[in-house]
Amino acid sequence: MNWINFAGYFGAFLSAITFIPQVLKAWQTKSVGDLSIWMIMIVITSTIVWLVYGFALHTGPVIAANLIVLALALLLLYFKLTFKQ
Amino acid sequence: MNWINFAGYFGAFLSAITFIPQVLKAWQTKSVGDLSIWMIMIVITSTIVWLVYGFALHTGPVIAANLIVLALALLLLYFKLTFKQ
Repeated sequence: MNWINFAGYFGAFLSAITFIPQVLKAWQTKSVGDLSIWMIMIVITSTIVWLVYGFALHTGPVIAANLIVLALALLLLYFKLTFKQ
Repeated sequence: MNWINFAGYFGAFLSAITFIPQVLKAWQTKSVGDLSIWMIMIVITSTIVWLVYGFALHTGPVIAANLIVLALALLLLYFKLTFKQ
Protein backbone atom coordinates (compact mmCIF):
# COMPACT_ATOMS: atom_id res chain seq x y z
CA MET A 1 0.00 0.00 0.00
CA ASN A 2 1.53 3.35 -0.97
CA TRP A 3 1.13 6.46 1.19
CA ILE A 4 -1.74 7.83 -0.92
CA ASN A 5 -3.79 4.66 -0.35
CA PHE A 6 -2.86 4.83 3.32
CA ALA A 7 -4.12 8.44 3.47
CA GLY A 8 -7.40 7.31 1.91
CA TYR A 9 -7.91 4.51 4.43
CA PHE A 10 -6.82 6.73 7.33
CA GLY A 11 -9.27 9.43 6.18
CA ALA A 12 -12.05 6.86 5.89
CA PHE A 13 -11.22 5.56 9.39
CA LEU A 14 -11.29 9.07 10.89
CA SER A 15 -14.54 9.89 9.06
CA ALA A 16 -16.07 6.67 10.38
CA ILE A 17 -15.28 7.48 14.02
CA THR A 18 -16.19 11.19 13.80
CA PHE A 19 -19.39 10.90 15.82
CA ILE A 20 -18.18 8.46 18.49
CA PRO A 21 -17.10 11.25 20.92
CA GLN A 22 -20.38 13.10 20.29
CA VAL A 23 -22.47 9.99 20.98
CA LEU A 24 -20.49 9.32 24.19
CA LYS A 25 -20.84 12.95 25.34
CA ALA A 26 -24.59 12.97 24.64
CA TRP A 27 -25.01 9.65 26.45
CA GLN A 28 -23.02 10.80 29.49
CA THR A 29 -24.63 14.24 29.83
CA LYS A 30 -28.11 13.33 28.56
CA SER A 31 -27.99 16.85 27.12
CA VAL A 32 -28.43 17.42 23.39
CA GLY A 33 -30.03 20.85 23.20
CA ASP A 34 -27.09 22.39 21.34
CA LEU A 35 -27.01 19.68 18.67
CA SER A 36 -28.58 20.61 15.33
CA ILE A 37 -31.15 18.02 14.30
CA TRP A 38 -30.62 19.18 10.71
CA MET A 39 -26.94 18.27 10.95
CA ILE A 40 -27.99 14.79 12.09
CA MET A 41 -30.58 14.50 9.29
CA ILE A 42 -28.03 15.53 6.66
CA VAL A 43 -25.54 12.97 8.00
CA ILE A 44 -28.17 10.22 7.83
CA THR A 45 -29.16 11.21 4.30
CA SER A 46 -25.57 11.50 3.09
CA THR A 47 -24.60 8.10 4.52
CA ILE A 48 -27.56 6.48 2.73
CA VAL A 49 -26.50 8.13 -0.54
CA TRP A 50 -22.89 7.01 0.04
CA LEU A 51 -24.09 3.46 0.80
CA VAL A 52 -25.99 3.35 -2.50
CA TYR A 53 -22.80 4.58 -4.22
CA GLY A 54 -20.62 2.12 -2.30
CA PHE A 55 -22.82 -0.90 -3.01
CA ALA A 56 -23.11 0.06 -6.69
CA LEU A 57 -19.31 0.19 -7.04
CA HIS A 58 -18.60 -2.60 -4.52
CA THR A 59 -16.22 -0.36 -2.58
CA GLY A 60 -15.78 -1.97 0.82
CA PRO A 61 -14.22 0.99 2.66
CA VAL A 62 -17.03 3.35 1.59
CA ILE A 63 -19.65 0.81 2.70
CA ALA A 64 -17.95 0.06 6.04
CA ALA A 65 -17.28 3.69 6.97
CA ASN A 66 -20.81 4.80 6.11
CA LEU A 67 -22.49 1.91 7.95
CA ILE A 68 -20.61 3.00 11.09
CA VAL A 69 -21.51 6.68 10.61
CA LEU A 70 -25.15 5.79 9.87
CA ALA A 71 -25.41 3.76 13.09
CA LEU A 72 -23.86 6.59 15.14
CA ALA A 73 -26.07 9.22 13.49
CA LEU A 74 -29.21 7.15 14.16
CA LEU A 75 -28.13 6.91 17.82
CA LEU A 76 -27.67 10.70 17.94
CA LEU A 77 -31.11 11.18 16.37
CA TYR A 78 -32.63 8.87 19.00
CA PHE A 79 -30.88 10.84 21.77
CA LYS A 80 -31.98 14.15 20.23
CA LEU A 81 -35.61 13.02 20.10
CA THR A 82 -35.78 11.40 23.56
CA PHE A 83 -33.44 13.32 25.91
CA LYS A 84 -34.78 16.42 27.63
CA GLN A 85 -33.78 19.44 25.55
CA MET B 1 -23.23 11.37 -15.97
CA ASN B 2 -24.78 8.07 -14.93
CA TRP B 3 -26.75 7.66 -11.73
CA ILE B 4 -23.79 6.22 -9.81
CA ASN B 5 -21.68 9.28 -10.56
CA PHE B 6 -24.64 11.43 -9.61
CA ALA B 7 -24.91 9.59 -6.27
CA GLY B 8 -21.21 10.25 -5.67
CA TYR B 9 -21.53 13.96 -6.35
CA PHE B 10 -24.76 14.20 -4.33
CA GLY B 11 -23.09 12.39 -1.42
CA ALA B 12 -20.10 14.73 -1.62
CA PHE B 13 -22.43 17.74 -1.69
CA LEU B 14 -24.36 16.52 1.37
CA SER B 15 -21.13 15.71 3.22
CA ALA B 16 -19.82 19.19 2.42
CA ILE B 17 -22.87 20.96 3.88
CA THR B 18 -23.21 18.67 6.94
CA PHE B 19 -22.01 21.24 9.46
CA ILE B 20 -23.78 24.32 8.04
CA PRO B 21 -26.91 23.85 10.25
CA GLN B 22 -24.70 23.22 13.30
CA VAL B 23 -22.63 26.36 12.67
CA LEU B 24 -25.84 28.41 12.22
CA LYS B 25 -27.40 26.97 15.39
CA ALA B 26 -24.25 27.61 17.43
CA TRP B 27 -24.02 31.16 16.09
CA GLN B 28 -27.69 31.92 16.82
CA THR B 29 -27.79 30.39 20.31
CA LYS B 30 -24.17 31.18 21.32
CA SER B 31 -24.49 27.85 23.13
CA VAL B 32 -22.06 25.02 22.39
CA GLY B 33 -21.83 23.13 25.69
CA ASP B 34 -23.31 19.94 24.24
CA LEU B 35 -20.90 19.84 21.29
CA SER B 36 -18.00 17.41 21.63
CA ILE B 37 -14.69 19.16 21.00
CA TRP B 38 -13.23 15.73 20.12
CA MET B 39 -15.78 15.37 17.33
CA ILE B 40 -14.65 18.76 16.00
CA MET B 41 -10.95 17.81 16.30
CA ILE B 42 -11.53 14.51 14.45
CA VAL B 43 -13.38 16.36 11.67
CA ILE B 44 -10.51 18.83 11.31
CA THR B 45 -7.93 16.03 11.25
CA SER B 46 -9.92 13.91 8.79
CA THR B 47 -10.45 16.82 6.37
CA ILE B 48 -6.70 17.53 6.39
CA VAL B 49 -5.99 13.85 5.63
CA TRP B 50 -8.64 13.87 2.87
CA LEU B 51 -7.14 17.08 1.43
CA VAL B 52 -3.70 15.43 1.25
CA TYR B 53 -5.36 12.48 -0.51
CA GLY B 54 -7.39 14.74 -2.81
CA PHE B 55 -4.41 16.88 -3.83
CA ALA B 56 -2.24 13.78 -4.39
CA LEU B 57 -4.85 12.30 -6.76
CA HIS B 58 -6.05 15.65 -8.17
CA THR B 59 -9.65 14.80 -7.32
CA GLY B 60 -11.56 18.08 -7.41
CA PRO B 61 -14.73 16.96 -5.60
CA VAL B 62 -12.74 15.54 -2.65
CA ILE B 63 -10.73 18.76 -2.39
CA ALA B 64 -13.77 21.05 -2.68
CA ALA B 65 -15.94 19.14 -0.21
CA ASN B 66 -13.18 18.90 2.39
CA LEU B 67 -12.18 22.56 2.09
CA ILE B 68 -15.81 23.46 2.93
CA VAL B 69 -15.99 21.01 5.84
CA LEU B 70 -12.61 22.19 7.15
CA ALA B 71 -13.76 25.83 7.13
CA LEU B 72 -17.02 24.94 8.94
CA ALA B 73 -15.20 22.76 11.49
CA LEU B 74 -12.68 25.53 12.22
CA LEU B 75 -15.63 27.90 12.80
CA LEU B 76 -17.22 25.37 15.20
CA LEU B 77 -13.88 25.04 17.03
CA TYR B 78 -13.67 28.83 17.36
CA PHE B 79 -17.25 28.94 18.71
CA LYS B 80 -16.52 26.04 21.07
CA LEU B 81 -13.46 27.81 22.47
CA THR B 82 -14.95 31.30 22.76
CA PHE B 83 -18.68 30.97 23.56
CA LYS B 84 -19.68 30.57 27.19
CA GLN B 85 -20.15 26.85 27.90
